[in-house]
Amino acid sequence: MRSILALVGAIALAGPAAADYRVKEIGSFHVGGEVVELSGLDKQMISFTKGMKPIEVDPNGNFNVGQMYVQYVKLAEPTGLPVLMWHGGGLTGVTWETKPDGDPGWQQFFLEAGHDVYVSDAVERGRSSWARYPEIYDGPPLFRTMKEGWHLFRIGPQDGWDIDPAKRVAMDGTQFPLEAYNQFTKQSVPRWVSNDVRTQAAYNALVEKVCPCIVVVHSQGGNFGYNAALANPDLVKALVAIEPSGAPKAEEADASRVANVPHLMVWGDYMDMKPWPTFQAASRAWADAIEGAGGTVTWMPLPEEGLTGNSHMLMMDKNSDAVAAKIEEWIKANVTKD
Amino acid sequence: MRSILALVGAIALAGPAAADYRVKEIGSFHVGGEVVELSGLDKQMISFTKGMKPIEVDPNGNFNVGQMYVQYVKLAEPTGLPVLMWHGGGLTGVTWETKPDGDPGWQQFFLEAGHDVYVSDAVERGRSSWARYPEIYDGPPLFRTMKEGWHLFRIGPQDGWDIDPAKRVAMDGTQFPLEAYNQFTKQSVPRWVSNDVRTQAAYNALVEKVCPCIVVVHSQGGNFGYNAALANPDLVKALVAIEPSGAPKAEEADASRVANVPHLMVWGDYMDMKPWPTFQAASRAWADAIEGAGGTVTWMPLPEEGLTGNSHMLMMDKNSDAVAAKIEEWIKANVTKD
Repeated sequence: MRSILALVGAIALAGPAAADYRVKEIGSFHVGGEVVELSGLDKQMISFTKGMKPIEVDPNGNFNVGQMYVQYVKLAEPTGLPVLMWHGGGLTGVTWETKPDGDPGWQQFFLEAGHDVYVSDAVERGRSSWARYPEIYDGPPLFRTMKEGWHLFRIGPQDGWDIDPAKRVAMDGTQFPLEAYNQFTKQSVPRWVSNDVRTQAAYNALVEKVCPCIVVVHSQGGNFGYNAALANPDLVKALVAIEPSGAPKAEEADASRVANVPHLMVWGDYMDMKPWPTFQAASRAWADAIEGAGGTVTWMPLPEEGLTGNSHMLMMDKNSDAVAAKIEEWIKANVTKD
Repeated sequence: MRSILALVGAIALAGPAAADYRVKEIGSFHVGGEVVELSGLDKQMISFTKGMKPIEVDPNGNFNVGQMYVQYVKLAEPTGLPVLMWHGGGLTGVTWETKPDGDPGWQQFFLEAGHDVYVSDAVERGRSSWARYPEIYDGPPLFRTMKEGWHLFRIGPQDGWDIDPAKRVAMDGTQFPLEAYNQFTKQSVPRWVSNDVRTQAAYNALVEKVCPCIVVVHSQGGNFGYNAALANPDLVKALVAIEPSGAPKAEEADASRVANVPHLMVWGDYMDMKPWPTFQAASRAWADAIEGAGGTVTWMPLPEEGLTGNSHMLMMDKNSDAVAAKIEEWIKANVTKD
């Protein structure tokens, strides 16, 4: 019976791609964070617009730290649970909004599938803003090179990068739109590695504000998603982890807390490339712990589903809507709207 | 005849507030920018997810600089020209997406009025990302204190700020939702004052990509908007400048180039507060130059329209939809869809 329902879901999904949808409201908010105070810094004279008189600026005072930006699109008549989409490291919610080749992103896909969609920027990134260092953050951020994304995201082999697009070596059969790689790298933002506690707090606050919901996470967002489900297992009705780069450890977290939260773990192709076996092993161990506690985990390597050539940025790959359809099919089979 | 049309427009606008609208596509893109190369920086060992093995990171390589993030919402059946919304200093496109009291922002208003809407983040801010300093940008950014916004945005007098909301002094009759001021300050992002050339280039590239259109600008965005109209007077069909903080100088720019671009300049209340008389004088001089060249400028101090108490953040004030209705009325009277 489940397989028939899933088939019906897949057929229904072929329709919406060219359709429009009725929106009740588009808006955004910032959630979480705290107010801090700085003192003892020197005053400055600044001209804010070219040619205009300088104004004295006192850098001391109160600032917001740790707030997170969330944009929502609410449908006039949603048919499923809201979907929260959490991006990976060095990126923002743009991950879900667009594909670098110009096609609409997964935000559009899940709207067309009948979900309200909440796309956020992790703390310190994008519209969430960031805080002064070393006064508030420990030190400077990391900036991802164009080269690093090429192999880390399994678009090409370790030594496949060249600044000249004609000289780049890609993975055989890759689904990533290679001609749009430079455009994709424009989405990169600086990142710190010292803000995990602030980021988790903001994600948890988001869940408590807008759920029950389905949480869809990617890469670095994976560990935040696993922990958000542990923090609020009654509000996170399903977790879709797309190539999570980390996971809770069974000896530190109680997997039985999420025994009633269906987990889907999705993996692309070329998973033997470093550091992906390590990342995947962390999620496999967490999946084992959840299953050991009586929970449900669907482990979905895409090649086993007949989808090959997927990079780490599989929501941007040329077959990405087929991947999204697999996820929506799983949602329909595993999650009911309360 | 024009006044009757305007009245019809105003009545029509009373309707959409509770309605939904049909969306064809929501998405985003980055426009403009260039690739730069850094070399000679030391390598680092970084653990990207708590508990995971550190990975060597080489900070040298190629990076994008000067790209700008643009999100669009395209209606199924737009009835007017697209509206591009450019925010002010120390903020992002969030300015247009929401009001800090939780009401929908002007993005929603102009969608309901029948325009496709493009909301961007200026170069270096929000989802546009920012670049390493001092290697690429000249030096560190400025961070706006919570206190500075209170008087600079004319929410309260120069000495009206206190970290304790109960002790804050506001302007008599202010329309700003005072209880939401802290929430508003979560929208602040760091800013540089050295990126005007990059920012203007990206705005011009955006106009060339998506216009003909109407450009709506706020505060620091004002000068970029004036100059975007000068650069592409055939594509910018109207410029709506909301409290612009700067303007081209008549002796440096040829106002006759924008003689066919209707300009609306909107001002809130309490305009005698520093530094607003200086900022307003710059736009008044540019308005005189446009009018002297045979162009059309509508100079609109809101108190003369019966709207009092508006802060600099007038798109967030309690009467902000009435302000937006004035702008939409002006658009209907002055701009035709080609």
